[in-house]
Amino acid sequence: MAETLYHYKQLYDFSFKIFLAIGCREEDAVTATNTLLSADLRGVDSHGIARLSGYVRLWEAKRVNAQPLIKIIHQTPSTAVVDGDSGLGLVVAPFAMKLAIEKANQCGTGWVSVQHSNHFGIAAHHAMMALENDMIGIAMTNASPLVAPTFSTDKMLGTNPICVAAPAGDEPAFVADLATTTAANGKLEILQRKNEQTPTGWVQDRDGNPSSDPHILKQGGALLPLGGDREHGSHKGYALGAIVDIFSALLSGANYAPWVPPFPAYVPLPEKQPGKGIGHFFGAMRIDAFRPADDFKFHMDEWIRGFRNAKPMAGHEKVLVPGDPEREFEAIRKQQGIPLLEAVVSDLQQLGQRFQIDL
Amino acid sequence: MAETLYHYKQLYDFSFKIFLAIGCREEDAVTATNTLLSADLRGVDSHGIARLSGYVRLWEAKRVNAQPLIKIIHQTPSTAVVDGDSGLGLVVAPFAMKLAIEKANQCGTGWVSVQHSNHFGIAAHHAMMALENDMIGIAMTNASPLVAPTFSTDKMLGTNPICVAAPAGDEPAFVADLATTTAANGKLEILQRKNEQTPTGWVQDRDGNPSSDPHILKQGGALLPLGGDREHGSHKGYALGAIVDIFSALLSGANYAPWVPPFPAYVPLPEKQPGKGIGHFFGAMRIDAFRPADDFKFHMDEWIRGFRNAKPMAGHEKVLVPGDPEREFEAIRKQQGIPLLEAVVSDLQQLGQRFQIDL
Repeated sequence: MAETLYHYKQLYDFSFKIFLAIGCREEDAVTATNTLLSADLRGVDSHGIARLSGYVRLWEAKRVNAQPLIKIIHQTPSTAVVDGDSGLGLVVAPFAMKLAIEKANQCGTGWVSVQHSNHFGIAAHHAMMALENDMIGIAMTNASPLVAPTFSTDKMLGTNPICVAAPAGDEPAFVADLATTTAANGKLEILQRKNEQTPTGWVQDRDGNPSSDPHILKQGGALLPLGGDREHGSHKGYALGAIVDIFSALLSGANYAPWVPPFPAYVPLPEKQPGKGIGHFFGAMRIDAFRPADDFKFHMDEWIRGFRNAKPMAGHEKVLVPGDPEREFEAIRKQQGIPLLEAVVSDLQQLGQRFQIDL
Repeated sequence: MAETLYHYKQLYDFSFKIFLAIGCREEDAVTATNTLLSADLRGVDSHGIARLSGYVRLWEAKRVNAQPLIKIIHQTPSTAVVDGDSGLGLVVAPFAMKLAIEKANQCGTGWVSVQHSNHFGIAAHHAMMALENDMIGIAMTNASPLVAPTFSTDKMLGTNPICVAAPAGDEPAFVADLATTTAANGKLEILQRKNEQTPTGWVQDRDGNPSSDPHILKQGGALLPLGGDREHGSHKGYALGAIVDIFSALLSGANYAPWVPPFPAYVPLPEKQPGKGIGHFFGAMRIDAFRPADDFKFHMDEWIRGFRNAKPMAGHEKVLVPGDPEREFEAIRKQQGIPLLEAVVSDLQQLGQRFQIDL
């Protein structure tokens, strides 16, 4: 598939102007653009600028409020619940993560559950805000139902990702960002575009039979929890996705399980709405609330080098540490630019024409 | 394999007397026994009384201190680090979880990282202590290295389990307790005894080739992270195991990665010991630090019923909620007794003879 390279700055200006055009405050447009493009830089193309027109369609459908009044609706010294007022998750999430960091500064840790939000981009962007504060950052979100729990044919959970970012010393930070499914939906979309089969354990058909058809979700199929099937631990992936849902939505008062609003604006909202919007959960733990940050970083370096120096199996050059692939993407893309598929470019051009903004 | 049923009370008395016999204080012997036997009740036979003689051997080898002075070595309003003084993890862990609960009572959440401990039994026992306080409980621990990270042939992580327990209203609590590997070591031990093959994705041989030999760890093989291989998401299982290690040991100052002390007393300690003992991590989040507990429980009931009523696939009667199987075991075993394999009975009888305690 043909790709065109765009400089980060080009995409930044374009996104920023689009967010302004739909009515975002300047500060929020900056935040939204930073969040969105962090995905493109880190190589998570499914969550970056390719979704920009999707956010705009949600705004058109009045499911996204461009000028939200984000509020803290309850708090204790170490916790808060935030009402995102239907704002862009790209803006609501950094607000909540900042609050978690402030609370961690005050009393060691901060934990913020969010209701009434929308898709927040990549979890790593938010969790990594903790790093410069010498904190461990945690971010998770629920999402619309694509995943069948073990033994079921019903789609009951989203891909519900978890990210944990921990600072190191001389080594780069540890950043684990994972969907709680065997494969993220973005991986499936890549196979759809290429019309290739999926490996086993990624999806099932409407009756729960194993499938390798990347289009099967449109025919009543489902993504599978990490593990794939019971014998390979899918009940664990299902449990992890459930934990994300409970922390993100049951603690905050957002919608949960099959009632989480969809990202595509053309998909109707579920009839039942037991809460408000989408839910997220953020945590920040100050390292020196446990031990001196320098001690922790010294041992994180030891830990990371231990894994880097572990013996690779035949056919593999080295053992990776969580965060390595994304950091390598970022280094390359900052220099060489961000490749966009033709379909994405044409989608962005149409979007630009509408608001008279050049890509 | 032949099994004999023992009443809970019989096993309780026996364990309690053994812990007293090795010098535990009465209060600690109660705690250790409760923790140990909660595994037998919940059907996690690999972590229950079958391990009692293993704990005694660790005490003989002076790797377990029967009369530890468990200390808080650092704290903030929402965090603490505990030094277990080489005590039984079965005793150290409840101490630390209680502290997390106290901190949650004070400032919304409590987070305790533990160094200098030993094997803590089942994570669920500790996490579930939060439930009666209307809190979400979290427990995790690192363990000696049996697991190869993705692309490696070296054993670098333990099976590093995570447990999250969340209260519900009329429905029983949500309790997810999972090793971050495709299969827990206990599952492998069952196949070893039966001399049966493992499914794919559970273990690899010393060169990193797929294997189905449950004895392969003795020949340089390794357990695999949840996912099994890269294509099926093993990098996610590896990341989850790593997160457990970082929270449990890097935050506390315990040993980590391949340097975590082994459970079998005959296995020498790793030469390098970058910290002290084994590490655990506990969390308690007061529900009403986020929203009224009754609201949360109402929606947890809705959530749980949603999954119970999800459509099962052919060949399965129903969809389970995390915690269901263990609760069913507990109900049956409390009534009918706890089945012990002949090998376990004879091991316990030998142990009893030594201390002149009847099983």
